[in-house]
Amino acid sequence: MELQMFAPILGVIGFVIAIVLYHVVKAEPVGNERMQEIGDDIYNGAMAFLAREYRVLAIFIVIVFCLIAVGMNKETAFAFLGGALCSMTCGFIGMKAATRANVRTTEAARASGQAKALEISFNGGAVMGLAVASLGLVGVGIAYIMFGGDPATAKYINGFAMGASSIALFARVGGGIFTKAADVGSDLVGKLEAGIPEDDPRNPGVIADNVGDCVGDTAGMGADIFESYVGSIIATIAISAAASTSLIATLGGVDVASVSTFAGGKEVLNDAGIAIQSAAMLLPLGLAMIGLVFSFIGIGSMKVLKTMDPGKALHCTTFVAAGGFLIAAFFFIGYLGLSTGVFWAILAGTLAGIAIGQVTEYYTAHAPVLRIAEASKTGAATNIIHGLAVGLESTAIPIMIICVSIFVANQFAGLYGIGIAAVGMLATVGVTMTVDAYGPIADNAGGISEMAGLGKEVREITDGLDAIGSTTAAIGKGFAIGSAALTALALFSAYATTVGLKTINLIEPKVVIGLFIGGALPFFIGALTMTSVGRAAGKMVDEIRRQFREIPGLLEGKEGVKPDSQKCIDISAQAALREMILPGVVAVAAPVLVGFVLGKESLGGMLAGATVCGVLLALMMSNGGGAWDNAKKYIEQGKIEGEEKGGAAHEAAVIGDTVGDPFKDTSGPAMNILIKLMSVVALVIAPLLA
Amino acid sequence: MELQMFAPILGVIGFVIAIVLYHVVKAEPVGNERMQEIGDDIYNGAMAFLAREYRVLAIFIVIVFCLIAVGMNKETAFAFLGGALCSMTCGFIGMKAATRANVRTTEAARASGQAKALEISFNGGAVMGLAVASLGLVGVGIAYIMFGGDPATAKYINGFAMGASSIALFARVGGGIFTKAADVGSDLVGKLEAGIPEDDPRNPGVIADNVGDCVGDTAGMGADIFESYVGSIIATIAISAAASTSLIATLGGVDVASVSTFAGGKEVLNDAGIAIQSAAMLLPLGLAMIGLVFSFIGIGSMKVLKTMDPGKALHCTTFVAAGGFLIAAFFFIGYLGLSTGVFWAILAGTLAGIAIGQVTEYYTAHAPVLRIAEASKTGAATNIIHGLAVGLESTAIPIMIICVSIFVANQFAGLYGIGIAAVGMLATVGVTMTVDAYGPIADNAGGISEMAGLGKEVREITDGLDAIGSTTAAIGKGFAIGSAALTALALFSAYATTVGLKTINLIEPKVVIGLFIGGALPFFIGALTMTSVGRAAGKMVDEIRRQFREIPGLLEGKEGVKPDSQKCIDISAQAALREMILPGVVAVAAPVLVGFVLGKESLGGMLAGATVCGVLLALMMSNGGGAWDNAKKYIEQGKIEGEEKGGAAHEAAVIGDTVGDPFKDTSGPAMNILIKLMSVVALVIAPLLA
Repeated sequence: MELQMFAPILGVIGFVIAIVLYHVVKAEPVGNERMQEIGDDIYNGAMAFLAREYRVLAIFIVIVFCLIAVGMNKETAFAFLGGALCSMTCGFIGMKAATRANVRTTEAARASGQAKALEISFNGGAVMGLAVASLGLVGVGIAYIMFGGDPATAKYINGFAMGASSIALFARVGGGIFTKAADVGSDLVGKLEAGIPEDDPRNPGVIADNVGDCVGDTAGMGADIFESYVGSIIATIAISAAASTSLIATLGGVDVASVSTFAGGKEVLNDAGIAIQSAAMLLPLGLAMIGLVFSFIGIGSMKVLKTMDPGKALHCTTFVAAGGFLIAAFFFIGYLGLSTGVFWAILAGTLAGIAIGQVTEYYTAHAPVLRIAEASKTGAATNIIHGLAVGLESTAIPIMIICVSIFVANQFAGLYGIGIAAVGMLATVGVTMTVDAYGPIADNAGGISEMAGLGKEVREITDGLDAIGSTTAAIGKGFAIGSAALTALALFSAYATTVGLKTINLIEPKVVIGLFIGGALPFFIGALTMTSVGRAAGKMVDEIRRQFREIPGLLEGKEGVKPDSQKCIDISAQAALREMILPGVVAVAAPVLVGFVLGKESLGGMLAGATVCGVLLALMMSNGGGAWDNAKKYIEQGKIEGEEKGGAAHEAAVIGDTVGDPFKDTSGPAMNILIKLMSVVALVIAPLLA
Repeated sequence: MELQMFAPILGVIGFVIAIVLYHVVKAEPVGNERMQEIGDDIYNGAMAFLAREYRVLAIFIVIVFCLIAVGMNKETAFAFLGGALCSMTCGFIGMKAATRANVRTTEAARASGQAKALEISFNGGAVMGLAVASLGLVGVGIAYIMFGGDPATAKYINGFAMGASSIALFARVGGGIFTKAADVGSDLVGKLEAGIPEDDPRNPGVIADNVGDCVGDTAGMGADIFESYVGSIIATIAISAAASTSLIATLGGVDVASVSTFAGGKEVLNDAGIAIQSAAMLLPLGLAMIGLVFSFIGIGSMKVLKTMDPGKALHCTTFVAAGGFLIAAFFFIGYLGLSTGVFWAILAGTLAGIAIGQVTEYYTAHAPVLRIAEASKTGAATNIIHGLAVGLESTAIPIMIICVSIFVANQFAGLYGIGIAAVGMLATVGVTMTVDAYGPIADNAGGISEMAGLGKEVREITDGLDAIGSTTAAIGKGFAIGSAALTALALFSAYATTVGLKTINLIEPKVVIGLFIGGALPFFIGALTMTSVGRAAGKMVDEIRRQFREIPGLLEGKEGVKPDSQKCIDISAQAALREMILPGVVAVAAPVLVGFVLGKESLGGMLAGATVCGVLLALMMSNGGGAWDNAKKYIEQGKIEGEEKGGAAHEAAVIGDTVGDPFKDTSGPAMNILIKLMSVVALVIAPLLA
């Protein structure tokens, strides 16, 4: 069975398609001079930031590479390097595409209408989607071919996941601080103090805000999903590599006696057992390949679907890919000789992903949003109280869904089931990531049309696309959290098996201590990131106020007077680069410290505590932030009787939205990565603790 | 050894002293007619609410009593009843004293000056302090005499803790909703819209706000601490009753062989072992007795200390009691023949309590508060972002302190150490509760002097006392959380031992599912309580706005025009009574459901998850809320350059304070009780699950 050889080949094909798609997007018309100028400003700002960010990351990568090479082995160190480079390449390509697609989407909305605008923004997103899926397959595929054949060397692959994870945390936190410092700062002075509309070209922070959308929502989200994708595959491989005979029997759908034999007084796998184990190790990679193929089909189907209602079209592409994937996965599992139970685990994961997305949509676009909007009538304080309450409340159902999926997956396929459920959720990442990456492009397109003064009709098209982008972003965040939870649990199981622990006993105080430390870490990282945004936004406010005060004619919109946008970009970039360091270092160092100082049981407790608190805070922050955002939009759209844009209730809602910004785009998303990164670091150092 | 016989006797003596003290306070002069009138309004409002609340609770108690009597046994049911009645009696006596002491404190400030005012408010608080300590001792003492002698019947005592816990949750949540609905509503309309000062008699919500201080901060806090106090004692008894031979050996400071013997192929305790077990079971009760005696001394020392700086005087009373207690405890442990290691565990608990209090003070009165106050300059949104960040950040050090105390306690005395550490922390509850209960009385006294128009000098004295009250309240909250964490862990250990689980294995998916469900519950209860306050505050705003609009001359302060305060009290009371039900029922039902449906391992996971998340959220909410409160005060006191009361930054800070109100006084404190209540319910049903 040499199926794994096809993984990197398929990955390379996918990557080539992504590059071609990039050039297709780039060949589209770019609009008038003013649009071109704005587009270039965003493009240059984003690429300049990425270059600076990558320079900082290079130092981190070199240090960690050396530490792993010296403290452990060269194989893991190179796998780490590979994971980091793949993740950075995804971010680079995805950003390039997004910052080319944005202005071209605006031009398409102006010149050709909605269908063409949708196609361009979708294709821009597809570059990122395909890059994530293909590079993941290339990287994990090569690592698998080199080390995966033998359960003894399979542990080296874990380094790849760690590389991807570390980059993801820095990219998410850095990007999140960049985008929200700019967004919060511009909104506070522009909307609340100066009373000018969003994206008004007079506002010095607007270009930084648009750069931030690309940096945070595109590059950050891409790194996050890339990490979940490779993390879930690798965790599942690790679980299979260290699986007990009874787990192997479950996966084969046979009894223990037929897969094991006694050798040297120990129960070991016989040939039939080893065959099942190989199949189980291969399955995650196989599913990723199937997922990529159906992602091509899903993305391609947009050619046909683009004239539909854009929201429906986006949903359709996802369903086409997911449906096809599930059918093929069912037969593939049979072909590998694995039990149908494995399929039920995958189904549970996929359904859980969809269900969490639906709940997210409910909390960020329906009754709870109305409650917050209504509460804005009695001021900012009640708006905030209700927003926090909605965020807290929104955790309950997703947690139940995660519990049910854990239960089902475990029932049918043991701990392996939890890993493979995560893989199932993420296999069609090519298309889900495309839909995610589409959002910030549409958002940018709207900003460009406002800044270039293209008029109401164009703005209506881009606003329509942007509104769908908000919903897909919220669903995407729910999906990212759900997949992160399952991936973290799979990594946790892989850690426990690899480190040789049969029990991590909650009654032992050392485990409880680990649990408390782990639980406190997401709160701490949340504090660091919120403080960073608050501080940087404060500086941004001062700078924008200064420009309005000191640049004559700026606020009045005098012909030819332009704000100093570069200054604002610098404030965001400096804050992002400086303040991403500490959270990243804490996340990498904490499991190492706890593991070596308090022991492997405490580390197990810590991972569990961090996963539970991290998932809960991520849900609370993402959903609360999304709900605040839409509550403001409800008032703007006149959905709240007696209230209108610019009134007292609207002002209260803008304050709520501003608080929600770092919640949903900085601290919340950082949680996903934090829990995966800590688990993967634990998995990498597991052989030293065993 | 018949020492336990003295427990109820000492308790009765303490209770008699509390009653005498009540009459001493009541005999103080009550001031002019206007003050008397205001005092009566608050007294009547508070007692009327308490009567209504207790009527609702009576139904709950009867139902649960019957369920326990039928489903389990009469003994547990009656113990439950006893716990509930003792807790309610504490609330009743404490409230009566607080609502008598408030107006008399104002009069003392007017007629005699600060020392007398401090004495009266302190004595008012001491009634609650002594009631909590003595009734706890009476109740647990009697239960111990009836059932404690035999490890087999000791489990019936658990019912007492459950009774105390259930009442505590309702009292805390109900009181918290009452007080914050009134507080938030009055502030939003009074301070922000009408621009009138706090406690202005024209504001219809002011009486309700003052009633709320008594209902929430006095009765609610009393029930909370009462629960921790009896919970920690009972958990430690339960741990001793089910202790392993090796734990008994540790407690005796001897080797296992000298405390055990083999009988019927099983290792059981010999006579020496049984003697150590009896001593270990008696110790928590003995410590409570010693603590009560030193509480008398601490409280009595105020007679001498009252002319000192009030803040120092309050600290001194606490240190006198704690110092004396520790010395006596050391000798008592030796007298009982237990290992000195037990003393180190107690010391760890006591020091942890003090340390957490100090950290709380730092986060609610020092640099972090300044950060929030500075952030108010750029508006309400940055104020809120920084406040949330401070709340999140403030969890880290207290969690480390808790971890260190768990580590030390376990190192020296195993799981028993964690329980006895909590007992040590809470033994001098007579005086710590006194200092806590003093706060709302001083707060009320200030309100009364403002409403009665007693002038600046009187207000300055009461403001001084109130400011210290804010600090003691913050420290008290930190202490309440720390003690709740240790108590919950002790109850958790008691649950595990009672239910017969040697391991609760985090690798098993059913435990992970429990962990997730448990973690989500504090978020859910937080959501319910925040929503309740938000909704009730919204109604309060509407009602106060209506009165200002419809009652001619009210806002202008026309002679003889009075607001309809009763209407506002009714809004708060109705909201509190209606909305306290669901959180209470969820907290009691959740462990029962999880235990019987998913099993005892899942229930163990759930308790651990709830404890970790509950403690973290409690810290975040209490400290965040306290910091917001003081950030507003900093601006009012002119500590932020260029900002003043009534300016834009102050307005932003008032919004932050308003958001912090339900955080620190409703949802945050509810967490403490939630985790203890769920653990104690699990402990009560443990024999059915075993």
